[in-house]
Amino acid sequence: MGKKIIKVGLLGLGTVGAGLIKILQINEEQVTQRAGSKIEIKKILVRDLHRMRGVEVNPGLLTTDPREILDDPEIDIIIELIGGINESRKYIEGALKNKKFVITANKDLMATAGAELLLMAREEGRNIYYEASVGGGIPLIRPLKHSLGANKIIRLLGIINGTTNYILTKMSLDNMDFDAALAEAQAKGFAEQDPANDLEGKDAAYKLCILAGLAFNCKVDFEDIYVQGISGISSRDVFYARELGYDIKLLAIGEELEKGLVLRVHPTLIPLKHPLSAVLYENNALFVVGNAVGEVMFYGLGAGSMPTGSSVAADLIDAVRSINHQVENGIMEVNFQEKPIISMDELPSSFYLRLQAEDQSGVFASLATIFGSENVSLNMILQKHSVEGMAEIVLVTHATAEKNFNLALKRIKQTSAIKKINSVFRVIEK
Amino acid sequence: MGKKIIKVGLLGLGTVGAGLIKILQINEEQVTQRAGSKIEIKKILVRDLHRMRGVEVNPGLLTTDPREILDDPEIDIIIELIGGINESRKYIEGALKNKKFVITANKDLMATAGAELLLMAREEGRNIYYEASVGGGIPLIRPLKHSLGANKIIRLLGIINGTTNYILTKMSLDNMDFDAALAEAQAKGFAEQDPANDLEGKDAAYKLCILAGLAFNCKVDFEDIYVQGISGISSRDVFYARELGYDIKLLAIGEELEKGLVLRVHPTLIPLKHPLSAVLYENNALFVVGNAVGEVMFYGLGAGSMPTGSSVAADLIDAVRSINHQVENGIMEVNFQEKPIISMDELPSSFYLRLQAEDQSGVFASLATIFGSENVSLNMILQKHSVEGMAEIVLVTHATAEKNFNLALKRIKQTSAIKKINSVFRVIEK
Repeated sequence: MGKKIIKVGLLGLGTVGAGLIKILQINEEQVTQRAGSKIEIKKILVRDLHRMRGVEVNPGLLTTDPREILDDPEIDIIIELIGGINESRKYIEGALKNKKFVITANKDLMATAGAELLLMAREEGRNIYYEASVGGGIPLIRPLKHSLGANKIIRLLGIINGTTNYILTKMSLDNMDFDAALAEAQAKGFAEQDPANDLEGKDAAYKLCILAGLAFNCKVDFEDIYVQGISGISSRDVFYARELGYDIKLLAIGEELEKGLVLRVHPTLIPLKHPLSAVLYENNALFVVGNAVGEVMFYGLGAGSMPTGSSVAADLIDAVRSINHQVENGIMEVNFQEKPIISMDELPSSFYLRLQAEDQSGVFASLATIFGSENVSLNMILQKHSVEGMAEIVLVTHATAEKNFNLALKRIKQTSAIKKINSVFRVIEK
Repeated sequence: MGKKIIKVGLLGLGTVGAGLIKILQINEEQVTQRAGSKIEIKKILVRDLHRMRGVEVNPGLLTTDPREILDDPEIDIIIELIGGINESRKYIEGALKNKKFVITANKDLMATAGAELLLMAREEGRNIYYEASVGGGIPLIRPLKHSLGANKIIRLLGIINGTTNYILTKMSLDNMDFDAALAEAQAKGFAEQDPANDLEGKDAAYKLCILAGLAFNCKVDFEDIYVQGISGISSRDVFYARELGYDIKLLAIGEELEKGLVLRVHPTLIPLKHPLSAVLYENNALFVVGNAVGEVMFYGLGAGSMPTGSSVAADLIDAVRSINHQVENGIMEVNFQEKPIISMDELPSSFYLRLQAEDQSGVFASLATIFGSENVSLNMILQKHSVEGMAEIVLVTHATAEKNFNLALKRIKQTSAIKKINSVFRVIEK
């Protein structure tokens, strides 16, 4: 039954590609047994034939010509690890047209064009596997598709960006300031030299886009996700948050409510006893709430050569099995219609607000009056230090419509005794 | 492609069966889409046709004759939810012989006869799905088979019995004593009226047996698992453990070392900052360490009607897809050879020891002498209260060969000033 050897083309040989090849070498026997066939990497597309690689490969496998892989009828599976959007999409479409199965670790592409590519794969009777596009080695895509497949998913909530979690952990546990924590993350390889996509929340939003599409059975438009990054968080915010019993984490949240979807990525104050507060450094964790299973959580390393390679290798085993069992149209994503999106304005949230005011009587009273007249009630108030006549005031509101909070905030900004709004973050209790 | 309707026979209609039927009702559209066919429960085997059920079913579906299900050629899948070993095994074998796919939530059976049944399924070109046999709704079996399928698993470590975890949580957080915590667990339905299997660690050992077989690619003999239950834990132990910075949890641990497997279930002192210390009440959590993925963790409700039903329903979707894609021999378990087992004697462990001694000078010295001469070094010592001339002494050793500790313990028992050995538990730091 099945082919004795399945031939695979690799597009790209960077960190994840090196991890994959190493895994196929050290766990060869087990991978062969599980897959039911020997797996042979026949060709590898690279930009530079002579660059040193993190792994030993036969130089004869390397090519700079994608057609040598896409047009090779012996190759049944392509693994796309070059990243980016335009080039990789062209390759994946070319592979599908040539009836190849596709594996990709490309979150940007799956977030922005996943629905179209999956539909195309369905038309061609093939499949696209993308476990490695989200959460590195943590099983997320497959559990959502299979293990929790009989559930209506109600909520996703988690830490799905390791770079920002590393920085926030360092700020919280080691009292580092943002720049020092970022520099350390870069030195250790947890942050890229240009970390903007991570810091601004875009990376997490891409991942949420993929997860939410799968969880809520729909096509999610990346532009519909509300995104706030972590670069506005100062060590003073981390300090005050802890003082009030909270940690600050960059959370990705997806919910299906009666009126539609809520999709958001933003820094969030969570109680110190919340399980996500214990997710430290470069680790990721995702809570999934289903209408049958209740709450389950998945935790592990969300990036890295070997963890992400582990997910690609799992997809490879599945793809080989599909070929051996002649499974066509194995795609489980069932619905690519968009669903209505609920705007943040309509949501209830609690807010953390840090501001600087003139240290004079009546400031509190005017703040309280403004919040009161916009129906925002206050939960906690802190005023610790006065420096050069300026008071630093920290407030946490009770849950309120974002709309109302924003109206209050606008009026506070116009108050002459208020000199600066330093930070505004959302707060969740669970 | 595939059948429009797939007919299913249910063996048993208890808690899990009721959950399954409810899930198939409330999430019908999604289940049908994912499975690719409508699923029809055609017959349900029950003992008593007239008992009230937790769910509404057409009484015409009920039967007391298993042959009506096993011999019905229209039924492609049977779901075994009656539990026990002999009867259920007979039914499953009968179903496989009649070329039906099998789903089971039966951990006792899969732990004791899983290898034989899977081999038989392979011969018949069918498959047995058993996600619901371990960890309720938490995805564990499928991730081990698929998502982590390219990893050599090095270690399993977790809390996989909700009853004991509920009791230990109550003892730790609410200072309850063992009997009160057990009574509350029974009142809330988290412990059975005869809780022996849970309390003695047998339930966790069954689950470890299944998980370890899958993780370490072998057949695990249930009798090879070292098992110690929680009934020897008193509230004094929980109190002292916290004093020393530990929680007591019933852990299941499986490891593959160079010389063979270590398989054990026992109460364990774990640091209060260990992530498993935050797994409370009836929740379960399993850490899996793979040679590629590193450490991942799965968390959720390990039992209950809807969570366990969620896992059965996921298996049902997979089974229907296998039928529709005509996947025969879809079995991924690859090796049913036994592997050598390392005896506990040869393992290094740290120990917690609580004993009662005469409150006189020289007792500590004689303890220290005995430990020293057996090469056991002490990490922590506590002596808090003396009551009626008796001192209660608590010791934690550094890691030592179990053999040496047991030799020391034997000599301590023979020391005249030592009146009673109250408790002996293992300690792990991570």
